[in-house]
Amino acid sequence: MYFITSNEGKFREVREMAAKYGIEVEWLKMEYLEPQGNSLEEIARVSAEMLSSQIEDEFFLEDSGLFIEALKGFPGPYSSYVFKTIGNEGILKLMNGVEDRRAYFMAVVAYFDGSTVRTFTGKVEGEIAREMRGTQGFGYDPIFLYGDKTFAEMSTEEKNRVSHRRRALEEFFRWLKENKS
Amino acid sequence: MYFITSNEGKFREVREMAAKYGIEVEWLKMEYLEPQGNSLEEIARVSAEMLSSQIEDEFFLEDSGLFIEALKGFPGPYSSYVFKTIGNEGILKLMNGVEDRRAYFMAVVAYFDGSTVRTFTGKVEGEIAREMRGTQGFGYDPIFLYGDKTFAEMSTEEKNRVSHRRRALEEFFRWLKENKS
Repeated sequence: MYFITSNEGKFREVREMAAKYGIEVEWLKMEYLEPQGNSLEEIARVSAEMLSSQIEDEFFLEDSGLFIEALKGFPGPYSSYVFKTIGNEGILKLMNGVEDRRAYFMAVVAYFDGSTVRTFTGKVEGEIAREMRGTQGFGYDPIFLYGDKTFAEMSTEEKNRVSHRRRALEEFFRWLKENKS
Repeated sequence: MYFITSNEGKFREVREMAAKYGIEVEWLKMEYLEPQGNSLEEIARVSAEMLSSQIEDEFFLEDSGLFIEALKGFPGPYSSYVFKTIGNEGILKLMNGVEDRRAYFMAVVAYFDGSTVRTFTGKVEGEIAREMRGTQGFGYDPIFLYGDKTFAEMSTEEKNRVSHRRRALEEFFRWLKENKS
């Protein structure tokens, strides 16, 4: 089955996790059209539906974002654009003086089985730190506190044990084992 | 020719402006799929291309955004999502202590003539105000300074004389008169 992404690091992570479930994943390296939308789930679903008109085989894709409660879910579905423009500095500035620090990372996997699209989600709850900490990982990791460490202060292994992406993928792989083998 | 929007106010404004050029515009009230993209021009173009597979007649649509220089163009193509989440308060907070206040509003019209899509842009340059001022207009108008007034301190007429949307539409209507009549 194909995993669609333009990001090699993501592909390696996904392949490794799939292998534990005895599932073999091939890399379909491409960028695809993502729609704008109100939720990550809707965006992943519609992306997969649009791709399904070009790709006949089974495939899946993954999308994720950071949702901050006090900012009505911002940056949410547009996390990657927001990171490229205002970055972690911008988020910390927006959260300056804000007491409610609750936030979560969410990942959605959209899977096309040759006829329909199904989605699986994973979530990890934490808080927005008061300043950037740590050098591991990427993106919003330095400002996302999980317990007393930020994601950027954890090893890849430590982070992968609890990550939203891991959780969404496990949901998906477990479902596959039960329903498609 | 059809103008596609779900917003009645926008339709009325566009119809009025078109009438001055002797162009009759009908309202096709619908929401459509907008892709994510790096530029407003790309988003409007791809939206129109996708719609052109469903609509055979001539149509056009319009999209616009606020681009702030010191924030690398943020909120740009996602202006409407950003407004619904962090709003003008969020933008002012991000701009707190920032000396370079330059910003512009940009509008893009995408027009499908029955066979290809063409785009027209309009831009108005100004600055981000230090605080919200005025009660006219909508969206980012209270923080967009044009000369010594914000867009929200101008009458609709005054604002429409210089607005990005007006400029993009005039480009389009002038082109139509020269090329399609």
